[in-house]
Amino acid sequence: MQSVMIGGPHLEVDALCILRSISPALDPTKHKGQAGKIAVIGGCREYTGAPYFAAISALKIGADLSHVFCTKDAAPVIKGYSPELIVHPLLEESYNIREEEKTSISKKVLDEVDKWMERFDCLVIGPGLGRDPFLLDCVSDIMRHARRSNVPMVIDGDGLFLVTNCVDLVKGYPLAVLTPNVNEYKRLVNKVLNCEVNDQDGPQQLLSLAKSIGGVTILRKGQSDYISDGAAVRSVSIYGSPRRCGGQGDILSGSVAVYVAWARELVSKGKFDANPTMLGCIAGSTLMRKAASVAFADKKRSTLTTDIIECLGRSLEAICPVG
Amino acid sequence: MQSVMIGGPHLEVDALCILRSISPALDPTKHKGQAGKIAVIGGCREYTGAPYFAAISALKIGADLSHVFCTKDAAPVIKGYSPELIVHPLLEESYNIREEEKTSISKKVLDEVDKWMERFDCLVIGPGLGRDPFLLDCVSDIMRHARRSNVPMVIDGDGLFLVTNCVDLVKGYPLAVLTPNVNEYKRLVNKVLNCEVNDQDGPQQLLSLAKSIGGVTILRKGQSDYISDGAAVRSVSIYGSPRRCGGQGDILSGSVAVYVAWARELVSKGKFDANPTMLGCIAGSTLMRKAASVAFADKKRSTLTTDIIECLGRSLEAICPVG
Repeated sequence: MQSVMIGGPHLEVDALCILRSISPALDPTKHKGQAGKIAVIGGCREYTGAPYFAAISALKIGADLSHVFCTKDAAPVIKGYSPELIVHPLLEESYNIREEEKTSISKKVLDEVDKWMERFDCLVIGPGLGRDPFLLDCVSDIMRHARRSNVPMVIDGDGLFLVTNCVDLVKGYPLAVLTPNVNEYKRLVNKVLNCEVNDQDGPQQLLSLAKSIGGVTILRKGQSDYISDGAAVRSVSIYGSPRRCGGQGDILSGSVAVYVAWARELVSKGKFDANPTMLGCIAGSTLMRKAASVAFADKKRSTLTTDIIECLGRSLEAICPVG
Repeated sequence: MQSVMIGGPHLEVDALCILRSISPALDPTKHKGQAGKIAVIGGCREYTGAPYFAAISALKIGADLSHVFCTKDAAPVIKGYSPELIVHPLLEESYNIREEEKTSISKKVLDEVDKWMERFDCLVIGPGLGRDPFLLDCVSDIMRHARRSNVPMVIDGDGLFLVTNCVDLVKGYPLAVLTPNVNEYKRLVNKVLNCEVNDQDGPQQLLSLAKSIGGVTILRKGQSDYISDGAAVRSVSIYGSPRRCGGQGDILSGSVAVYVAWARELVSKGKFDANPTMLGCIAGSTLMRKAASVAFADKKRSTLTTDIIECLGRSLEAICPVG
């Protein structure tokens, strides 16, 4: 069993070591899909960049297949960003359907996603999802099914809006990962702990929050990322970039999804004795930060999310060279 | 307080110094949005490049978020140019709606834009807007709302057609910036000063024009750019490029928007004693010229707008290195 335990009294982990230990060896005997199949649930008429960023990041890190389940309007645009993604034009927003169709469409969406569900090693719920009530109801159903099938879920963006309004969707599900930014974290604390964010004792409050939601894992994004599953708190502080352009959170959610899938595989084989969602968050955060710093060194103020994505491979190779 | 005053008797300013002074330090404690949120109102069935150029330029200079509000036809195309932009398919042109729907659609457009309005640090009105009367009426309403919310506006292209026909939209609003080219300037002078352009005494006429429109800031584009808010006139003459390919004005409008937002922040904190729209025009003009010269040095006759956009980051770094 590997020795990169994440226990111990220190918050800061040996993140590079964890990242190295989780990244699977590239083995020519493996076949398509064995390095991970990820699905992003997100993308609507208004938002198309976010699900693309999450899904392409998963591939760039080493997943074999990356799917996007989005609305019919969003699909051609997302397909257009890259031929590498499998994009399902499946979800519907209220403006596009009649009241009397809702039940049948909702059932159809769920049946369709269900066909795929058990093949996925991790879902990312929320990038560019929007806030249409009918759409969010469908996604709530998808989450319930994923949970029943024991599929891990990384929840970000509008998925966090959904979860904050209905904490039961993830409560007590240890394979759920929430990745809130400063505002999303504030809303979550307000709702679940019924108090304000306490920065004096941030790690302790994060621990309480994760515990209160029944042991989900929370990655609180910030200058350092803090991660807790309600049992421990860990931090990742390796230097990233001072650019805060939109979309970086989507790279993170896609990365965490891949590493959660890989960590879970290792834990299930007894190669690790640690919570796979904690390991996945630590590895995803570490790689994202490294890639952001590499991109920033080159592009400076003009660094955009696509520039960071282009640095994922090189950054991973620097930390964890192939063979 | 900074010493890069733009008073004094000389027209030509120390543009590089102003650009350096306005560009914010990159601070790892900041979070998404704090370096600027820009929105472009433009893009219709006929024109999609212009709003893209303006919006992507804002990001490449260092804004965190860049939105485009365009017609439903234009949105998938603009989205397709880049996943970095948030594109709202919201505006409508006459050909696509019935007479009896106009009032309700107009209200819907305005309600939707209003949800976002106060989050924006600056609007760019006009790139690729077209001249559909119904669409322009909606945009007039958006401008009135922006003004009520004290959101700065950079007005270019078809936005200048709108403003020239209805000067009251900006009259007396010190946060309005007009960026006319030679023809747009001529129409504005004809309409407002009721005379022809006088090139013998160009700066004085520009001053009178800005004063007549109640202290808006006008950036008159040309071999040198002249800028006036009705109180002073300044010029920026650093060498750009002899290429006059379409779209360069859109880079300028997006750049000016970012610098106006940043300058306004500094002025509000007492770090500058100058008109933020003047500072923003000087900085935007300077960077655009520098990037055009860098692009031209490489691409010569084949220099296109996208080439210049690719040089924004490098040019900014040459003038104002990060850290």
